[in-house]
Amino acid sequence: MMFASATVAAGAVSPTSAEQRVVEVAVQRIAGTRRSRDRDLLAVEEPLEIRLEYGPRRARTGRSVTVTMRTPGYDVELAAGFLFAEGLVRRREDIEHAESCGLPAGPLGVRNRVRVELAPDVTVDAKLLERNFLTTSSCGLCGKASIEALPASTRTRLPDGFVVPASSIHDLPNRVRAAQTVFDRTGGLHAAALFGGAGDLLDVREDVGRHNAVDKLIGAQWLAGAVPLSERLIFVSGRAGYELVQKALAARIPILAAVGAPSSLAADLAREANMTLLGFVRDGRFNVYSGPQRIGAP
Amino acid sequence: MMFASATVAAGAVSPTSAEQRVVEVAVQRIAGTRRSRDRDLLAVEEPLEIRLEYGPRRARTGRSVTVTMRTPGYDVELAAGFLFAEGLVRRREDIEHAESCGLPAGPLGVRNRVRVELAPDVTVDAKLLERNFLTTSSCGLCGKASIEALPASTRTRLPDGFVVPASSIHDLPNRVRAAQTVFDRTGGLHAAALFGGAGDLLDVREDVGRHNAVDKLIGAQWLAGAVPLSERLIFVSGRAGYELVQKALAARIPILAAVGAPSSLAADLAREANMTLLGFVRDGRFNVYSGPQRIGAP
Repeated sequence: MMFASATVAAGAVSPTSAEQRVVEVAVQRIAGTRRSRDRDLLAVEEPLEIRLEYGPRRARTGRSVTVTMRTPGYDVELAAGFLFAEGLVRRREDIEHAESCGLPAGPLGVRNRVRVELAPDVTVDAKLLERNFLTTSSCGLCGKASIEALPASTRTRLPDGFVVPASSIHDLPNRVRAAQTVFDRTGGLHAAALFGGAGDLLDVREDVGRHNAVDKLIGAQWLAGAVPLSERLIFVSGRAGYELVQKALAARIPILAAVGAPSSLAADLAREANMTLLGFVRDGRFNVYSGPQRIGAP
Repeated sequence: MMFASATVAAGAVSPTSAEQRVVEVAVQRIAGTRRSRDRDLLAVEEPLEIRLEYGPRRARTGRSVTVTMRTPGYDVELAAGFLFAEGLVRRREDIEHAESCGLPAGPLGVRNRVRVELAPDVTVDAKLLERNFLTTSSCGLCGKASIEALPASTRTRLPDGFVVPASSIHDLPNRVRAAQTVFDRTGGLHAAALFGGAGDLLDVREDVGRHNAVDKLIGAQWLAGAVPLSERLIFVSGRAGYELVQKALAARIPILAAVGAPSSLAADLAREANMTLLGFVRDGRFNVYSGPQRIGAP
């Protein structure tokens, strides 16, 4: 069979067993001057191609939108989350069908392509596609211009009203650590987690790329029709760059909390969008870079 | 003046003052239930467009190769390192001229474009350009295929012979920390450092993106004519993914040491290329994932 393909109905989750997310390898451990042979677990990293099919029924266009290095699992959600964050799809009905395809690759038999078929009436903005193909030609490109080039969906100010007590923020790292299935075993995965207003953990995703973990998390919500996520908090295990703020903003998540540092442009975008951006959330402390009105007592 | 441009001769370094790499912002610090107002330093993140001009004198082609979110500084080196790792340039003479250009953007007046002019006799492999534009169309894409699609320069096995004592490896994190200029102040930058066989620190670069830090480090060496770096060790402050192994391999660096975990594909590529890959290099310990013959006693 040349092109075996596992069809996954759009909207259905496509988890991958833990066996596809972790591999065991031989390792030599060196501690001081002592050496020992052992086995170690590594997070799986494989390329995923997201391929888009769109246009009227009789004249469909097919093109590759991106290739991302990701940890297998939840690939349809990753593709949906990515396309949504980039403004290429908006409503749930824009995606008619999505499936994992490609030959099972490598010793783990992972499929490394997702094919996404858009509804025939969805028009694809060539400029947004180009944004991915990075063919900008504006001399004088700057962070400000990047913010202005964002899809329309992310050029709005988030409303006030959703408030989370500081004590819930202090709790986030522990709650995520308890829920992570792979992280503690490999140390090589980023986590992204979604919380409700009562500090209740709703979902968590892990990936070698932190942007992929966020796309998987938000993609699942979007496919389930739960976006906008106006009363949710998103937590990320690493640093908060511009791209993560953009993705949270597309889903209209009002609070982004990161274990690491934010970048300058992440703070700029969060401030402009009236998003609450928290950094260094660990050890009972955190910094508020924008939107302090959403952090309540105690 | 519409298109102010700061010409930087190819080969010359283009450092940016620390003022362009860090910004000060207002922050609210929350520790337990205590709140205080303070100032905090953030690492600057701005987009950089790398633009390539190539072809015969009378019919030059100009196109954007990539846009990367980076910390300003050493932009010409970043561009050179990126183009070299991607196999788009090989010999130092392939680059005729490179300069920072674009209007000074934002409050820091950063220029966010590098224009690289190739010598007229350099042929640009459309397939390698496409690799960047991610237009792969092979169904059944996999990690193995990614390795096979690498530029020819990185499809060789590294020779044995360069050996570093384990005690030098244990020392790496401290030596890099002492040399980092920005990291300790923002917590938001990745570092990449180059060491000689005696454990001597040769150069260090910092960036919000770890691949950018590596491109800046290797790009400077390549511009100076120092590549292949056959008797060098590269150290990175974060995790070691596939992309970092690929970049080190292009420069023929035989040892890659990371503070964090490697990914499965990083370990696969290192093993195939006979590169020594070290992970979790911290607190007097590390793991050897491939190439243990290069780690000497004590």
